[in-house]
Formats: sequence, C-alpha cells, structure tokens
Amino acid sequence: MYVIANQAPAATGIPGIEHVTLAGSDDGLRRISVWQQSLAPGAATPPHRHDCEEVVLCRAGAGELHIGECIERFGADMTVLIPADVDHQIVSVGKEALQLVAVFSATPVATWLPDGAPIELPWRS
Amino acid sequence: MYVIANQAPAATGIPGIEHVTLAGSDDGLRRISVWQQSLAPGAATPPHRHDCEEVVLCRAGAGELHIGECIERFGADMTVLIPADVDHQIVSVGKEALQLVAVFSATPVATWLPDGAPIELPWRS
Repeated sequence: MYVIANQAPAATGIPGIEHVTLAGSDDGLRRISVWQQSLAPGAATPPHRHDCEEVVLCRAGAGELHIGECIERFGADMTVLIPADVDHQIVSVGKEALQLVAVFSATPVATWLPDGAPIELPWRS
Repeated sequence: MYVIANQAPAATGIPGIEHVTLAGSDDGLRRISVWQQSLAPGAATPPHRHDCEEVVLCRAGAGELHIGECIERFGADMTVLIPADVDHQIVSVGKEALQLVAVFSATPVATWLPDGAPIELPWRS
C-alpha cells in the first residue's frame, strides 16, 4: 500500500500545539519523516535541536524562528531551513493559527533540549 | 538566512506540469529536496524512478500512482509513499489540477527512466 489517508491532528500536551505525523518509520520509511502541526496564537515549541536537517513549509499564520542570535519572521508561502544540530524554537506570532508541515532527513526524529537532555516526543516521529 | 520566500511555479516543458523547487541543494541542504508541482487534468509525469525515498503530499485534485502492477488513487489529505529504486508515474485524473508537494531523501534528486537512462530534469532539484 503506497497511499495513506492523513490522520486528524490531535492535541500534544504542549499548550496550543496540535500534531499529526503524516509519514515516518512506522510507515516503512528509513530516511524521511513528515509532520503536520498547528500552533495557536502565542504557542511555541520548546527550544530544541535535531541531528538531521529540517525544512518547514508554512501554509497559514505568522511565525518566528528563533535560532542562535537570530529571530526570522515567516508566513504563508515561505519555507524555513533549519540545519542539523542547531538549537531552534518556533513561535506562533499571528492572530490565526500557524499551520506548518515539517520535513526531516531522518526517521524517527531524535530531539534534544539545548542542555543535551533527550526529549521523549509525545507522538510517533 | 533561514527563511526563503517561495518562488512562483513555472511551466516545465512537460505538458500540463508546473513546478517550483521549494528547497534543495542550492539552498545549502544536503539530504532533503522539496518540490511543489501542479498537474493539469490529464497531465502525467513520465514513468521514472529515483534512488531515494519520496513522500508526496496531496493538497487538491485527484491523482493516480502507477507503480509496479498497482494503480492507487489519491486525493487531498492523502500521502503517497514511494520507495527508492521503484519505477512510478503520477497521473492527474480529476477535473481540477492535482496540487502536490514532493519530498525526497536526497538533493539533488537523481532520476532515471525505466530503461535506466538518466533524465536531465528541467528544474533545479
């Protein structure tokens, strides 16, 4: 079976963030994960990093990428490139939810806090 | 710079197919390419294969994946998983354009015809 019907996004336990994994290791992939997330206005990921590349496609809303000493703003029809091994945080700064698809060059997606502590993600990754 | 404004899709020379590369090696990536494509009703990719994994997100329209002896139909809010090294073809079978985002576990994306001849893609990949 090559076609999957997308599951509905679900609450994650992180305030304001809904998530669904569209594709990953549980589907037989070995080198790609794809997540879809919605961040309510004001919601934010924790600062974190991965050991793989990440590309974020923005479908709606307004976001800020906090990375190193930089804050870069993005919105619909913009693409965010996040290198491996760099701490970053995404913040929803608009009046509507920030709608994202995130693509990773690994599956599952290992994730760490800036202090090096591994994060147990509350979803299949 | 971590944020890129998406370019507009452009004609490809393949009848009915418009394309824009949202992210890839020219942007500094080493393990992910992301393409956005629109296939007009009746348009089809040539049969082809890659040596990397591919995940296709369908945003609108109706498509068929032709792969091996299988034909699987897909539409909006469905995800298509295409293993590496397997010949496949995507056909737009709806009344509106088939809107896709394709993600690859390599960049650039090497592509071959079923007879093994390499395809020179008419876009940066």
